[in-house]
Amino acid sequence: MTMAMDEAALTAFLRDQFPQVADDFAIERTDGEALVVRLAVSDKHLRPGGTVSGPTMFALADVAIYLAILARIGPVALAVTTNCSIDFMRKPRNGADLRATARLLKLGRVLAVGDVLLHSDGLADPVARASLTYSIPADRPAVR
Amino acid sequence: MTMAMDEAALTAFLRDQFPQVADDFAIERTDGEALVVRLAVSDKHLRPGGTVSGPTMFALADVAIYLAILARIGPVALAVTTNCSIDFMRKPRNGADLRATARLLKLGRVLAVGDVLLHSDGLADPVARASLTYSIPADRPAVR
Amino acid sequence: MTMAMDEAALTAFLRDQFPQVADDFAIERTDGEALVVRLAVSDKHLRPGGTVSGPTMFALADVAIYLAILARIGPVALAVTTNCSIDFMRKPRNGADLRATARLLKLGRVLAVGDVLLHSDGLADPVARASLTYSIPADRPAVR
Amino acid sequence: MTMAMDEAALTAFLRDQFPQVADDFAIERTDGEALVVRLAVSDKHLRPGGTVSGPTMFALADVAIYLAILARIGPVALAVTTNCSIDFMRKPRNGADLRATARLLKLGRVLAVGDVLLHSDGLADPVARASLTYSIPADRPAVR
Repeated sequence: MTMAMDEAALTAFLRDQFPQVADDFAIERTDGEALVVRLAVSDKHLRPGGTVSGPTMFALADVAIYLAILARIGPVALAVTTNCSIDFMRKPRNGADLRATARLLKLGRVLAVGDVLLHSDGLADPVARASLTYSIPADRPAVR
Repeated sequence: MTMAMDEAALTAFLRDQFPQVADDFAIERTDGEALVVRLAVSDKHLRPGGTVSGPTMFALADVAIYLAILARIGPVALAVTTNCSIDFMRKPRNGADLRATARLLKLGRVLAVGDVLLHSDGLADPVARASLTYSIPADRPAVR
Repeated sequence: MTMAMDEAALTAFLRDQFPQVADDFAIERTDGEALVVRLAVSDKHLRPGGTVSGPTMFALADVAIYLAILARIGPVALAVTTNCSIDFMRKPRNGADLRATARLLKLGRVLAVGDVLLHSDGLADPVARASLTYSIPADRPAVR
Repeated sequence: MTMAMDEAALTAFLRDQFPQVADDFAIERTDGEALVVRLAVSDKHLRPGGTVSGPTMFALADVAIYLAILARIGPVALAVTTNCSIDFMRKPRNGADLRATARLLKLGRVLAVGDVLLHSDGLADPVARASLTYSIPADRPAVR
């Protein structure tokens, strides 16, 4: 499988297009199998009691699939989420970073579907799982 | 149907338990049929281009069902989201507030299920829909 | 809102295209607001103990949204389900028919999204809820 | 991880509890990592044109997670599906059998969550993915 963007290209894209959140995310790996992105958890992501908030976990799953799509088709800023189903399964460890592992299951002409597992540093079992569908603009560059 | 908390009680609870986000939300209505909560959209909720971000819409749907549950069973801070399925259907209007209308479909001993429609001020059709499941701690006060 | 097919036209379409299941379903109502379809529950739909099976409820929700789309755009046999999220909330009454009430929330150029509530005859509260996304072939007749 | 039931025990359970569908399913593998179950596709599972129907794929995903739970906790006939989110991604090959690979992500005291991939014999890419939540009766035997 040919990748259109590597870790460095995705990081640059994120900083350029999403400057307000880019510092939170570090892209650790992208290849034909999976994309791994880490969220540096800080106070703004926490609920009272120290748990990472649901919207934070949603945002991490969402960006992970978005980046996994871009890694394959190149910088298409207009790809948009149409559906997400997310299961919150365990409480993340207080203060620990989160790691998303995203796998694309379908990359079609107009729709892409992927699965994400979220892990909390120091816990073996996943804290959340999500599946997302993205709609891809018709005039995007062809998939390589 | 007896309600355990009204708009004022829910607003006070939100300010007390979630001070970092309480100012964003205004509870407009709660009764046996639905709970309506408004999000005052500001820069921090926007993506480049002026669209409200997906995590913001997720957060609004999530808080709407949470408040709809509390309105029925009283202040149970430990109720947690276990699943959310959300469909993003239309682009919200730039800068317009969002309004969530939440309906509880089930309020069981351990699980609650509800549906939410999100509307963007000035648009007739909903911009998103979501369904959420909450897990309710076993030692909560009995449902009235 | 102009409807492309009424109850009689939808019933004829179902008998023509899906003869193996058409006898199970009766279309009770279709208008701009909702489509209601009834499933005549028989032994083949039941699990041991007399409960309607999950796949049966899925099938009813699926056909209800499909028919709600056709009611609006006309007979497009190739519309296909791309996503369904379904919550099973209560046990249906033994032997009672099921009734699906489907509402379209979006009818776009390529995607349609709808919500369904399933009721068991004799129970006030819904037994299940579902949301579905359909992909619509590009060469379909224009929406009227 | 200790398994409570192996392929033979699960097969016997299925024949005993679900005699009307047991012949359709063959349990190929169960271990600590995944459970694989095959559906022998026949005419009753097909839509006009020869595609496997959506309810059939839902049923296969549902039974796969159910069996994956029983493999771990033993014969608990009363475990019930509370939520399923399923994405239909590709058309199965006409007449080909389907294979479900189910992985449990959480096996809690009252809820279990799992992911399933469905493959059509002869196609490398999955035809569908699903995630399911089961509610487990409180008086079940303890998880080993």
